[in-house]
Amino acid sequence: MRSIKRALISVSDKSNLERFARFLEDRGVKIISTGGTREFLSQRNITSTDITKVTSRPESFGGRVKTLDFTILSGLLFDREKDINEAEALEIEPIDLLVCNFYPFTQVKKSQADLDKLIENIDIGGVTLVRAAAKNFRGVAVVTDVHNYDALTRELIENNMSLSLETRYKLMVKAFNTVANYDADIATTMTEMSCKSSLRLSYSEYKTLRYGENPHQNATVYRDNNAQAGSFLLDQNQLSGKDLSFNNVLDLVSALDVVLPLERQACSIIKHNIPCGLAEGDNKSNLLALAWAGDPVSSFGSVIAFNCLVDKKDLVFLEFDNSDKTKRKFIEVIAALEFTEEALSYLKIQTNLRILSISQKFIDIYSKGRELRFIPGGVLSQDVNNKTYEKLECVTKTSYLDLGKKNKLVSFGIEAIKQIRSNAIALVRECRDGSYQLLGQGSGQPNRLNSVKLASEIAQKNLIDQGEDPNLSDVLLVSEAFFPFVDNIEYCAASGIKTIIQPGGSIKDKDIISACDKHGIAMYFTGIRHFKH
Amino acid sequence: MRSIKRALISVSDKSNLERFARFLEDRGVKIISTGGTREFLSQRNITSTDITKVTSRPESFGGRVKTLDFTILSGLLFDREKDINEAEALEIEPIDLLVCNFYPFTQVKKSQADLDKLIENIDIGGVTLVRAAAKNFRGVAVVTDVHNYDALTRELIENNMSLSLETRYKLMVKAFNTVANYDADIATTMTEMSCKSSLRLSYSEYKTLRYGENPHQNATVYRDNNAQAGSFLLDQNQLSGKDLSFNNVLDLVSALDVVLPLERQACSIIKHNIPCGLAEGDNKSNLLALAWAGDPVSSFGSVIAFNCLVDKKDLVFLEFDNSDKTKRKFIEVIAALEFTEEALSYLKIQTNLRILSISQKFIDIYSKGRELRFIPGGVLSQDVNNKTYEKLECVTKTSYLDLGKKNKLVSFGIEAIKQIRSNAIALVRECRDGSYQLLGQGSGQPNRLNSVKLASEIAQKNLIDQGEDPNLSDVLLVSEAFFPFVDNIEYCAASGIKTIIQPGGSIKDKDIISACDKHGIAMYFTGIRHFKH
Repeated sequence: MRSIKRALISVSDKSNLERFARFLEDRGVKIISTGGTREFLSQRNITSTDITKVTSRPESFGGRVKTLDFTILSGLLFDREKDINEAEALEIEPIDLLVCNFYPFTQVKKSQADLDKLIENIDIGGVTLVRAAAKNFRGVAVVTDVHNYDALTRELIENNMSLSLETRYKLMVKAFNTVANYDADIATTMTEMSCKSSLRLSYSEYKTLRYGENPHQNATVYRDNNAQAGSFLLDQNQLSGKDLSFNNVLDLVSALDVVLPLERQACSIIKHNIPCGLAEGDNKSNLLALAWAGDPVSSFGSVIAFNCLVDKKDLVFLEFDNSDKTKRKFIEVIAALEFTEEALSYLKIQTNLRILSISQKFIDIYSKGRELRFIPGGVLSQDVNNKTYEKLECVTKTSYLDLGKKNKLVSFGIEAIKQIRSNAIALVRECRDGSYQLLGQGSGQPNRLNSVKLASEIAQKNLIDQGEDPNLSDVLLVSEAFFPFVDNIEYCAASGIKTIIQPGGSIKDKDIISACDKHGIAMYFTGIRHFKH
Repeated sequence: MRSIKRALISVSDKSNLERFARFLEDRGVKIISTGGTREFLSQRNITSTDITKVTSRPESFGGRVKTLDFTILSGLLFDREKDINEAEALEIEPIDLLVCNFYPFTQVKKSQADLDKLIENIDIGGVTLVRAAAKNFRGVAVVTDVHNYDALTRELIENNMSLSLETRYKLMVKAFNTVANYDADIATTMTEMSCKSSLRLSYSEYKTLRYGENPHQNATVYRDNNAQAGSFLLDQNQLSGKDLSFNNVLDLVSALDVVLPLERQACSIIKHNIPCGLAEGDNKSNLLALAWAGDPVSSFGSVIAFNCLVDKKDLVFLEFDNSDKTKRKFIEVIAALEFTEEALSYLKIQTNLRILSISQKFIDIYSKGRELRFIPGGVLSQDVNNKTYEKLECVTKTSYLDLGKKNKLVSFGIEAIKQIRSNAIALVRECRDGSYQLLGQGSGQPNRLNSVKLASEIAQKNLIDQGEDPNLSDVLLVSEAFFPFVDNIEYCAASGIKTIIQPGGSIKDKDIISACDKHGIAMYFTGIRHFKH
């Protein structure tokens, strides 16, 4: 590429421009500029030629037409090899550098502007300049990002005022992506103003993973180009350990899904994308042991998340420094809001363990918005499930629940159930120290009775393992959907369960309530179902 | 809007153009056209003015610059109210109609063109014209779709050669969407040529659903704008019944996932997104009963899919016409490649039942490509899991399996396991008539032993219910991943299971094999894991 001798600057966002423009002027680059840009430059004593001098046309129609001109666009577009004679004959001078960004359509849209305001903020000239320059990147450098000026300045200094083909290619790629994002936003907005919604999603490759769910599946992670800063899970700070695998990422999402909505300090344990341990309470150093006790078999090789700062004493249950290596608990991933230095040193004993700190920013914007699932040829989009219960209505003669006090235990149980796949049953209890514990769960079963059995069996086993009486009378059974048949209640009665929380709404509700009454079980309807399929 | 008096036509794709252009000419519309378009029109005796007469400039630089001109773009862009005097002073005549489509970048890309060829097929002029006309849709009609000419002709005739604001708005929305798709393709292609992948996905609203996974979640289905014709699940032909719900769609996807890869005629039953019934065989009229017997409790309220034509005799098991209504099986959705008239009449007895015929086209392109899952701020992308097994290696002293003959039963078992969530166990068998049947499955458990127990218990129960000996010695146990502990094998032995299929690869493999040998169990390694999380 010939060195840069002539530049066109036409920008809406003037950030960082002064220094770059001054550098160009100092190096003898002839600058052409448009209306507002020219004013900005001349106020700073940077000389530029008014574009109307080049086009021999006025800026017309309230600025709608200023750069849309044969001379300007030919200067950007003509092929620097093939078309050189034709350009000379037509007295077209090449433009070597274009610095351009667009009317702020996206920002204006966010300010709830009306259609006319939006339309005036659809940039025609700027987009045309950028697309023309990008197409001709072999002869033109196109700069669309106000954060690139300094790096380009350095390269221009080093390379005697020219830019490598590689740099121009990168600038071209960025330019076309910028235009595509801009037009995607316009297309989506205009579509939605006609009362039809549309989705345009844009992602950049973040990294290639070793493999997907299984070793024979290739996998890649992409970052959402429009995601708010800090909202991308893989931008969280990994403090130690191996790279996250595909399945680690899925498990980590579930671990955070279950632990982040809880009010008190909490710890979740995920295995094969199933929440098999969960505890919440004020006595933080006890949470991991309580969560682990929810399924001591499955917790091996799990992914663990805390919604709070973690200290070494919160982790010693893992016995990472036990000289008997068989006592050390093996886990795959641990995430927390923060780790103390001491906690981190302790965790790093397991060099492979993936340790992540999750930023407050991430948590603040987590799980707002929509949940998307791909189906063949399309996408299902739904509101995130961010309710717990609507009411807590006792429908039986007996009522064991002190609603005033135990509301929060119900919420805890529902947060657990929300992340367990249907049919889902959670048995939760309040421990002596006021902590809440998931004592057993039944998940992923095609009928509800299976899940009730699975949850009850593991809860009883866990109580025995914890040296307690395997009595389920103080435990709440939370069901994510209604009971279709009385057999579930019969089983609960036989297991000694005394309190059931469920949405209600079955045509069999009357029979279900009678069965509870027969066995002295208290049952409460919440009005909110929590299927997770 | 004033009636259309002056039109600019500049098209790459000339389909359907002749009739439309002739109509415009007949109605006295002055047509301006560019190079190839003008040639096309004049060959058909349609008069048009060469654009160079309007711009007073030659078509330059091999066609790179022909429409990029002050006069033309002002004619499209000036505000028909505010700028009328300015336009007159500048001698700008309005252009009322733009007919334009772009260089075929996408098609050229598909033909494996090199970078130079691609770059020449990035349309600058056309995109600029369309964006300018779309911005000024209050004064200009912009036509970018060759399939819209006839409808517009009708409206022009009815409305005395003008188009309603509503039509111009719709044309504008389509124009911006067309540009956005075009630029998305360019941006993606240019990004990928620099060895970074990117994803740009674009969806249009297909319909709003009653609700999402739960009644308190709003939900919408979108169609992929770039999906091949026929590949969208909701474009399949619904022959009867209520609208598909969010959960119906998820279940239907799973039902098809499990049944479509099978070679012989097959039937799958999905409940809560779990394959709880599956049968494959030549005796089609027996398949539904065999599949149903895999979990007669859960099959109530299920979603059913066949991979073949379905006749009435294949369905009578449902007993829809039984005078004892309690015998009639209740199902939510049934899908098949085709239904005979008789089958359809029979199914329609249940007026709410959703009946879908799946096109051969859909099946042909089903499940090619990638599988995407949303995570906070990004997407995980992986190859579809379309392997079954790599080898079938007997690792034990005993070998019950006639590998030559039973290979297909192993494949059947693996296709089942692929769609069951981890930890997943399937018990499958060959029936006397040569059909294959899923006799029991264990799914969604955080440890493998649970799943082995669940699958074995239901298989034994099902055998008893089918009036058979509850002996599992002829059944294959298929595990989607290796066994971590010997307890699984001990449990299999106690249940009478004699044949185990699993990928292998545990550090405990040696112990696992010894345990099998101790109990006379035959075990085969496949080398391929099938986690589904």
